[in-house]
Amino acid sequence: MERSEHAPFVDRMTRVRARMVELGIDVALLSVGADLPWLTGYEAMPLERLTMLVLPREGEAVLVVPRLEAPRVVERPDAFTIVPWNETDDPVRLVARLCHEAMPGGGPATAAIGDRTWGRFVLELQQALPHTRFSAANEVVGPLRRIKDPVEVEALRAAAHAVDAIVEEMRDRPFAGRTEADVSREFARRILEHGHHVVNFAIVASGPNGASPHHEASERVIEQGEAVVCDFGGTMHGYCSDITRMFVVGRPPDGWADAYEVLTAAQEAGVQAARAGVPCETVDAAARAVIAQHGYGEFFIHRTGHGIGLEAHEDPYMVQGNQLVVAPGHAFSIEPGIYVPGRWGMRLEDIVVATPDGPDRLNVAAREPVIVT
Amino acid sequence: MERSEHAPFVDRMTRVRARMVELGIDVALLSVGADLPWLTGYEAMPLERLTMLVLPREGEAVLVVPRLEAPRVVERPDAFTIVPWNETDDPVRLVARLCHEAMPGGGPATAAIGDRTWGRFVLELQQALPHTRFSAANEVVGPLRRIKDPVEVEALRAAAHAVDAIVEEMRDRPFAGRTEADVSREFARRILEHGHHVVNFAIVASGPNGASPHHEASERVIEQGEAVVCDFGGTMHGYCSDITRMFVVGRPPDGWADAYEVLTAAQEAGVQAARAGVPCETVDAAARAVIAQHGYGEFFIHRTGHGIGLEAHEDPYMVQGNQLVVAPGHAFSIEPGIYVPGRWGMRLEDIVVATPDGPDRLNVAAREPVIVT
Repeated sequence: MERSEHAPFVDRMTRVRARMVELGIDVALLSVGADLPWLTGYEAMPLERLTMLVLPREGEAVLVVPRLEAPRVVERPDAFTIVPWNETDDPVRLVARLCHEAMPGGGPATAAIGDRTWGRFVLELQQALPHTRFSAANEVVGPLRRIKDPVEVEALRAAAHAVDAIVEEMRDRPFAGRTEADVSREFARRILEHGHHVVNFAIVASGPNGASPHHEASERVIEQGEAVVCDFGGTMHGYCSDITRMFVVGRPPDGWADAYEVLTAAQEAGVQAARAGVPCETVDAAARAVIAQHGYGEFFIHRTGHGIGLEAHEDPYMVQGNQLVVAPGHAFSIEPGIYVPGRWGMRLEDIVVATPDGPDRLNVAAREPVIVT
Repeated sequence: MERSEHAPFVDRMTRVRARMVELGIDVALLSVGADLPWLTGYEAMPLERLTMLVLPREGEAVLVVPRLEAPRVVERPDAFTIVPWNETDDPVRLVARLCHEAMPGGGPATAAIGDRTWGRFVLELQQALPHTRFSAANEVVGPLRRIKDPVEVEALRAAAHAVDAIVEEMRDRPFAGRTEADVSREFARRILEHGHHVVNFAIVASGPNGASPHHEASERVIEQGEAVVCDFGGTMHGYCSDITRMFVVGRPPDGWADAYEVLTAAQEAGVQAARAGVPCETVDAAARAVIAQHGYGEFFIHRTGHGIGLEAHEDPYMVQGNQLVVAPGHAFSIEPGIYVPGRWGMRLEDIVVATPDGPDRLNVAAREPVIVT
């Protein structure tokens, strides 16, 4: 039991080190963000006290952690050791010292630093390691993290089914007369009730607000005859959910239903295009072509999708210009939208995993607009 | 109305620019984190699409924002203009171009970059602006942000009173037989019910878990005769709350009550020491001395407090070695603790604002342990 529980971390670390050798990276420095939990099972607190894994391409990996957070860490002696620092220590100097110890004779020539590491720590590390060239750890870890193993796919599926269930529950809930913020809080509450540990977002964008893709739920009161974009998700056992469904209060506004038919076809085209061997930009183009053919091209103002896993948004991105080839294990959203400023908006989103047998759509909630009162 | 609403942002920007001139900083580049909302009223989404205020020491300030998030921004034409970027644009190149336009003849020699800016953007900006020396924006903005104006103090007080009310409510709630995670979820729910928009944390650490200051609420069942550290807070209209109170199920364990008396005296000493003109480390020392005098010194394993405002933790820190002098308007926690590994822990925390008339304790909840069933 203990052995199998530890295995993914040791195996992942071995694969990261192989890539470091390949790319000529001497040390990886990982802090807040998803690389650290993917490699160690521990997520750094996003606060001002530095937590950082010092992972040289050979030799011991060391997790530098504030002493008062050290009891939170589940130790994995086969993967890394812990060095706690005290309140009056300088953790950046400690990391620099560990880098020099790992690379005797001048320290690391190259270091890969986690994407979300705070800028202030990047600057301080650059000062403490003046002869080291820094690059983005995403180049090292990203290509490994974006291939989900079967356990990860099932974690994503469980999170997807949890938000699917919320779509069903909301079918019987009133929308008219409530504020967007009130409905958003209800989504947030249900996200937690359905087993997520964190709410990542609960966009509720009604009527003309629907034309703002990342609208923040406001005090606007939802009215009869309006379409409401509901885009919500959270994190469940480390993995993220993300779904968008349209809720319509009574009858939709003029022209809306026709556009929604186009949107449904575009989303289906995106899902069907999401096959191993196809460049990501082709998936984007497949959804976009359907919308453009029907004259709504100018109203689809964002990319078709984003990768998902430990992060709500991560590689690979389904966007024009991304020639990365979709591979089995890639997990991402397919979420085209049509946004008519001042009038209404719509988006339809599912999470899809590419498999050797074609796209595996994780969300099972009906894709028709949900008619509510 | 409109005028007065805009005034703080224009005034703050003017003061930031004056400091930039003083420190020889050509441009400030602010992204995720609290500097941006403090200066513009807009908080960047913590996602992979770059939002960044380009603030040169003279001339127009420009907020670079993803086009699909642009409708979220409340424009302040007297303070900054907006430049949205499209999905296939390169926002780092856009920021670099704006830097060059603001500083014709070679671009900025120096740039101050926000503390929490993602590492990957720092590295990309360094590549795009190879002749620019980067430093931490906290040196520019921190000294201004840490002096809270009266409106900010009242926002902190409102948030403090909201969590005070939760302490009172929890007095009548059962603890024994429930898991830490269950009680933590209840705190989280009440934080939102009391007007916070975000839950920042809800630490519930029972029995021996109390000895881990940043313990993560677990499936451990709380039992009779245990002390429970409850440290919780959220963000309300942008400003943070943070309180710790001890809950005791029935009678506390042997030795606990004596130590709690010491802790209460130590916290009071810290609060009374928190006066304008005194170095921060003196505030820490005042609380620490009381604990040490009674033989618990080795069990107080963290600093006495942290600043609070738009961020849950920010300048100034009450920690040994910090010679920064407390000034009127500084807002910070006073939260000594005693942690006996394997047995129990305790912490007592209030938010205090330094004023010309002495410390103003924002929290009003009783400081005695709350006896629960």
